[in-house]
Order: sequence, then C-alpha cells, then structure tokens
Amino acid sequence: MDYAANPLRDALDRRLPRIAGPSGLVIFGVTGDLSRKKLMPAVYDLANRGLLPPGFSLVGFARRDWEHEDFAQVVHDSVKEHARTPFREEVWQQLSQGMRFVPGVFDDDDAFQTLKATIEELDKSRGTGGNFAFYLSVPPKFFPTVVSQLKKHGLSEGGEGSWRRAVIEKPFGHDLRSAQELNAVVHGVFKPDQVFRIDHYLGKETVQNILALRFANTMFEPLWNRSYVDHVQITMAEDIGIGGRAGYYDGIGSARDVIQNHLLQLLALTAMEEPASFGAKALVTEKLKVLNAVRLPRELGKHTVRGQYTAGWQGGQKVRGYLEEEGIDPHSKTDTFAAMRLEIDNRRWAGVPFYLRTGKRLGRRVTEIAVVFQRAPHSPFDATDTQELGQNALVIRVQPDEGITIRFGSKVPGTQMEIRDVTMDFAYGESFTESSPEAYERLLLDVLLGDANLFPRHQEVERSWEILDPVERYWEKHGKPEQYLAGTWGPQAADEMLARDGRSWRRP
Amino acid sequence: MDYAANPLRDALDRRLPRIAGPSGLVIFGVTGDLSRKKLMPAVYDLANRGLLPPGFSLVGFARRDWEHEDFAQVVHDSVKEHARTPFREEVWQQLSQGMRFVPGVFDDDDAFQTLKATIEELDKSRGTGGNFAFYLSVPPKFFPTVVSQLKKHGLSEGGEGSWRRAVIEKPFGHDLRSAQELNAVVHGVFKPDQVFRIDHYLGKETVQNILALRFANTMFEPLWNRSYVDHVQITMAEDIGIGGRAGYYDGIGSARDVIQNHLLQLLALTAMEEPASFGAKALVTEKLKVLNAVRLPRELGKHTVRGQYTAGWQGGQKVRGYLEEEGIDPHSKTDTFAAMRLEIDNRRWAGVPFYLRTGKRLGRRVTEIAVVFQRAPHSPFDATDTQELGQNALVIRVQPDEGITIRFGSKVPGTQMEIRDVTMDFAYGESFTESSPEAYERLLLDVLLGDANLFPRHQEVERSWEILDPVERYWEKHGKPEQYLAGTWGPQAADEMLARDGRSWRRP
Repeated sequence: MDYAANPLRDALDRRLPRIAGPSGLVIFGVTGDLSRKKLMPAVYDLANRGLLPPGFSLVGFARRDWEHEDFAQVVHDSVKEHARTPFREEVWQQLSQGMRFVPGVFDDDDAFQTLKATIEELDKSRGTGGNFAFYLSVPPKFFPTVVSQLKKHGLSEGGEGSWRRAVIEKPFGHDLRSAQELNAVVHGVFKPDQVFRIDHYLGKETVQNILALRFANTMFEPLWNRSYVDHVQITMAEDIGIGGRAGYYDGIGSARDVIQNHLLQLLALTAMEEPASFGAKALVTEKLKVLNAVRLPRELGKHTVRGQYTAGWQGGQKVRGYLEEEGIDPHSKTDTFAAMRLEIDNRRWAGVPFYLRTGKRLGRRVTEIAVVFQRAPHSPFDATDTQELGQNALVIRVQPDEGITIRFGSKVPGTQMEIRDVTMDFAYGESFTESSPEAYERLLLDVLLGDANLFPRHQEVERSWEILDPVERYWEKHGKPEQYLAGTWGPQAADEMLARDGRSWRRP
Repeated sequence: MDYAANPLRDALDRRLPRIAGPSGLVIFGVTGDLSRKKLMPAVYDLANRGLLPPGFSLVGFARRDWEHEDFAQVVHDSVKEHARTPFREEVWQQLSQGMRFVPGVFDDDDAFQTLKATIEELDKSRGTGGNFAFYLSVPPKFFPTVVSQLKKHGLSEGGEGSWRRAVIEKPFGHDLRSAQELNAVVHGVFKPDQVFRIDHYLGKETVQNILALRFANTMFEPLWNRSYVDHVQITMAEDIGIGGRAGYYDGIGSARDVIQNHLLQLLALTAMEEPASFGAKALVTEKLKVLNAVRLPRELGKHTVRGQYTAGWQGGQKVRGYLEEEGIDPHSKTDTFAAMRLEIDNRRWAGVPFYLRTGKRLGRRVTEIAVVFQRAPHSPFDATDTQELGQNALVIRVQPDEGITIRFGSKVPGTQMEIRDVTMDFAYGESFTESSPEAYERLLLDVLLGDANLFPRHQEVERSWEILDPVERYWEKHGKPEQYLAGTWGPQAADEMLARDGRSWRRP
C-alpha cells in the first residue's frame, strides 16, 4: 500500500506523515461498550488511513471463552458497524493477523503470564518492538488489581528502547481524596509520562480548534479579556436520560460526571494564557495555572444550582422522571442538572464570571462555549435604533453542527439606522471536505506516538476536584435538587441564578 | 390608507415613523436617465411605503412639449419598469394627482415664472406648504444658470417657516479649483445646509452599515487600528466599459470619476474616529478630520498606477479596447483603471497603508472594503502547521452579495494541528426579510426631511480634490496609462505596486 498517497489521510498527513511506530494495544474490558463502539473502530480507521505500522497488533483481555478468531470476529463486526472510513478487505487482513485474545479475570496470574507470552510472541511475529499501550476500559475499582498485575508480571516496563503506557478513562475518582488515591495506585506502577488519561472531549476537533482560533489568529485574542468580555457560558446539554448507566450515575450526578472533567477542561482551554509551544508540558502548565486561579463564589447557595428531571415529553415521546428510572433509588438526591458560577482570579479575567451548566433531559443535545462581550461603551446611535440589539458573542459550537458563530449588530435594511442582531457562521462541515476523525482516533494515535498534549495530567484532575468538592459538600448538607420537567432547560433556580447577575442563559 | 400598518414599511418605520412633512420635489433634467431609472421609481417607492405626505408633489422641468398628463405617463412607465415595490393603483392615483410639468430651457425666464406659479398652485391645491427641493439632474455647466434663475425668480428661499433645498449630483468639479468655483456658484444662492450633494454610494445599506458595524458593536473597534491592522484595500471594480458615457468620461478618467468621491468617502467612513452622534455635523467633522490626515506618498511613480483597457474578452464576449470605443480620442491618455496608496497620519492609522483601486472592464463587478490584519505576533504552532494560513481579514462587501466576510484560521480536521484559512459570512439577503431600499429612496427621503448625514459637505469634496490633484498632475506629466486586457484585474504595475510592499491585491 502506498501510504503517502492514501486518500483517507489528511492533507498534512500526506505531506508530513505522523505515523505510529512499531506497537500494539492491549485492551482490558474489551467486551464493553466503549471498546466495541469506539476503540475497535478507531483502531481500524487509523489502520485504514495508513497511520498505524504494518505490524500493529491488538490484544483483547476479558473473561470470555474466546479463541483469537472469535475476538477478530467481534472486532470485525464492530468495525463493519461503527468505523468511520470504508471497509477495505486488504487493510482488514493485515490488521486482523495481529489480533490476539487472552481470556481471564484480573487477579488471574496465569492470564497475565499468557498476556506476557502473547506480547513476546507479537514482538517476534509482528515486530511490535516491545511497545505496548494498556487500555484500562474497566471500572476504576479494578485499576489497583490490573496495574499491580502488570507490574508483578513485568509488563509495566518494556525492555531497553521500548515503551509501555497505561490509558485510563474517567471517572478519575469521585472527589479529591479518591482521585489522589487512584493516582497513587497508578503512579505506584507507571511514571507520570506513561499515563494517558482520556477525556474524549479534548479529542474533538472543535475543542482542539479553540487553540487554533485563539492563537493562530490575530482577530480574537485582543478581545479575549476582561476589557471586552462580559461573561462566558459553557454548556453541555444532553437530551437523553441516564439510560443504562443507573449503577454508575446514581450518587455521582451531573457535576461530577461532566463539570469536573469536560467543562473545566473547556474552561481551561478557553481562559488559559498562550502557551510557549503546544508541547504537553507547556500546555499543562498553562491549563493548571488558570485552573489554580479558578475561585468558587462565597455564597454557594446563590451561585450554584442543581436539578433533577421529572417525567415529561421529549422528541414527541413521554419520558420517565429520574426517580422512576430503572435502578434508581426513589429517594435519590443525585443531580441530573448542575450549574455554577466560577471566577478566575487573574489579570485577564478578574470580574468576568464563567457560568458552567450541564444536564440530562434538557431541550436539545448541544455543547458550546459562548464568549459574551460587553455592550459598546458608548453608543452614538439613538436608543430606539438599538433596542433590538443584544450583546456581541462568539460561540464555539463543540457539538453538534460543529463550528463557530459570531453574533453582532447590523443595520436593518430601511431608511432608518435601526440595528439588530445578526449572526455569521463558520461550519466545519461546509468548509472542509475532510471528514473529522473521531476523538478516539486522534487520542489512540497520540497514545501510540507518546503525544500527551490532549490528555489531562493528574494535577489537573486533582485541581478540578478541589474546585468541585466544596460545591458537592454544600449540596450534600443543604436540601435536595430542584425538579425540572424533562425536555426543558433545567430548574427555574438556574435562570434566577443568572437573572440576579443581570444576565440570562443562551437558548442554544 | 393605514400608514402604520403598511407592510412595505420597515419595522422601525412602523414603530416610529420617519415620514416627510408637506413637501414637493422639482427635477431639472427630468428626461434624463437618472431621473427615469432612479428618481421617479424612488419617489413612488417612498409613497408606496407611506413615507411621503399625502399631498406630495413632483414637478418636472425640461425642454419638452409635454402636458402634465404626458409627464405623469412618463413617470408611470418608469415606475412600472423600475420601482422596487409592487405597483398599487391607489398609491399611484394619490401621487399622480400631484404631478406637474413645466416646459422650458434653463435661461427662459417665463419658464421659471411658470415654475413659480406651479409651486404656488401646489401649495394651495396639495398643501405642500412652500417646501420644495430642487434636484439639478443636469450637467454641471448648467448649474450657474439654474441656481441664478432660482434666485432671480425668488424660488431659492421659501416663505416664513418653509424650506427650499438644492440637490446636486457629481461630478462636483474636476479638480480643486473647479470644485471651489462650483461651490461658490451654489453657495452664492443657497446656504450650506440647503445644499445636498448626492453620492449615491453613501445611500447604500452596506455603506451605512460600516457605521453600525464599527460603533454599535464591541468586537470590531478594538481591532480597528495600527496595532492589529496591516493594511486596508478599498476596491470598486466594474466589468462594463464606458458605455455611452464617452463624452463625460474621456479626459476625466477613473480616479476623478470614482476615487475622488466614492472611494475617499468609503475610506473616511472606514477610518474615521467615532462621532459624538450621528448628526450631520458630528459626522462631517469626523470625516473631514480623517480626510485632512490623508497623505499621498512621496514617490507617486511608485505608489500610484493608472491603466487603460485594451480589447479582450468579457463574459464570453469580445469587447473593444478603450481607444476603440465610440467617441473616444484614439490618442486619449484617460485612465480607466487607477490605484494608489494613501497614508493616514494620525495616531490610529500611522503606518497602515490604505490601497484604493478602481477600474472598468475588470474581472468582475465588485465593491468591497477589506481590512487585512497583521499576522499573530507569535505562533506557538509549528511552521508546517500554518503554512496554508494567510492573514485574518474582515471584508465589507458593498456590492453585489452585500454582507460581511471574516477570514480566519481554523484547524483542519485530522490528527494533526494543521491550520488553514476559512471564512465566515454574513449575508444581508439571508439575514433580513426586509428588502433593501434603493440608495435614492433613502437619500431623497433624507433631503425632504433635511437630514444631511449621508451627504458630503463642500469641505469634504474640496479636500478630496486636494488629495487627488497632485496625482492627476503627476500623471499628466509622466507618460501614459499602462494597458491591460479587458476582463483582467488591471495593469501589471498595480500588482507590482503592492508586491513592492510585500502585499498583494485580493481577487474578490
């Protein structure tokens, strides 16, 4: 196959290939949803785009009575169903020859010995060079067992000149203490630069584009500060309920599930100073710096809100309330909606509130960052001319309809100087013929290349819990979530929270 | 007719009507093209939108053997063919009852006595209240005769509490001296605030929107200065040749025809400081201030260019060269293309060149103002990531496709941080259901209301000639225009002029 001419590769990939070296991937919990829907298709798509080495190998580890062929068949079905790029038999053949399955449970020493032997066999037969990433697609309670087994069986370190890496998924704990414990376990075995924490939001094109937008352009950065910005709204709204995640979700809630990781990462990328480079270290330094400057308001009762959805209508269908969902304690106080005001105590942002909100069963599925600007300091126009003029805003649409919208005032056609809000749009879908890689494609390739730019470090995770913990403690002590009708935009208290500040939420 | 509910009126007009008071319009040269294609339809459209008083009257003056009915029929045909809004019989009836025709030549005292009597009759029969605007749609050589006749017959001043106004069209002279002479003639009869100079470009929605864009918004003005702007390009390109205008055009040329008025006015609106209000005085003050700060570069040979089109192809048709056009001196040195670099010597713009260009028989009909920003002062991205990234730009599309485009860099979808130029668009046509009034609608209404905001004052006209005169004198002394093929973007020297500055013209 002529890699450079591969039409599935990005333009820059063709000019200047960014291809993983000899390596393999081991997935623990390979029978799970994430693995089937995201990881396996991402591996195939990377191979199809010519970004994996010819000998790339994939090892599944799970409690199943499977042969290698059975595993390959599972991957095959997953790829057929979920891959982004077209199925090509020759790519599949090449890839599937490197698939191995190791049956076993996590405390089974024999299974880990088999895994070790499998890796050695692959190094010989496929030239993986001892370079393996271990993807822990398993609940956090199994982390200690898996990582200590990896260590015990000499798998956590490759030989001379080779690498071993661990990939872990959120939740990274449920508060600061548990996160620290978890990090201690992982770092007891792996060095910090061996550990890749996946926040798949950071793999999204639109999220990476925050950096391009801010720092590759001249036009935006001069406005990006307290002199011009009135406030920032970061929203991740889901229209679905908790689905089959009751066991995980109840007792955790929306703030821990979304704000602690996704939204605080979006805040960090939006608010941070320009890094000296886009190396992982420089990026983490800036993200940490701004997260360290984040301050909770004093009166948490006024500036935070939580909600819980009740039965309602969504997409023309009657849906259950949270307390009626299967597997949920009917007295649960878990939040399915959370909103809070954060301040950033630095020269750039002092006095500019960042409003974060997330929720399930809201009006529409949308994730966006809205930078809302102050009104012009002086208007030479008559008040009647501008009564339908709002505030300028720059909205980064993370999903769906990925793109950027600018809202500004324009003269209404007519014989008077009436000014009204209009929008201008940039849509990824219209501007690029390239289809966007899935977040997991990007992130898996980064793991294999050892690029840690898009992975939060443990300090960020811990700092994010430090921000959220007081809110969770306050909520625990004070009452319970306010109910909101499924299909609406959250509890009334959320609107009141902004109204008190003389502002209102966008209805995206 | 219920004026407030009139669906043809703008939203703000419905809320807060801006309707001319009792008045009439006298057009000298009523048989001309401008009158038939623009003025008559504009009068009708204004009436149709309920913005003229019920007794509004229109008087035609020309050397024709017409009765009032003949004149009304001419207006009727013009309205049917050129009006923007639908024809409504009841509006037409009301309007046509106030139409009068005065036959005569400009030095005919009897004709002016008839005109006087007609006005008095209209005051009685239609309640025009003595308020009349005189539209001089005649070549400038007739201005002295017409205005002195108006004075001689007591028409230049209304009675107590009524007004008389004079409307004149470009060319306002062909150099500073002739402009001063012309202004002396007009101001010998009319006071400055009685004189309305029409530059129809200023009546265009997109031109008025420059002010809304800059001063009703927060986002743009902070960038609008030498700290962020690299240069500004103002282009008015026509695809047509000189058509039937040989008599006027030859010896005048594109710089006098377009740069002196339209382009320098666009420059003034783009570069001026924020006025204290949008009253005519405050606006003129700011426009004059910035025009007074405009400076020609020292080496006119390097920083100005003129061209003349030769035969070529346009729109699939073979077209003649300028020297072959009917009525053109085959040795003519008249410029059909002109470009120049101007500097603005003030704190905001020092060091930021404004490049102006205009021409006939260019690639496409387009008028636009492009504010081109500097590159980001530092790029944390790799050079390979940004090799397809240009400079940010904000483009005000004056015509056609009226709107605004922002060009900026965005990440290309893919597993690398490649950044490429993309655009976001605001289109008038898509954002507003209101159709844009013709420039003449706006401007005629302004004349009747006495609003002089959109009319250049004589100081601006004279200052603009002061800027252009040295260029014309230089051109006269040095060689002749460089030829360019019809359908191309002007002579090579124009490209070289920008290339010497390390820049290039946009191909709009």
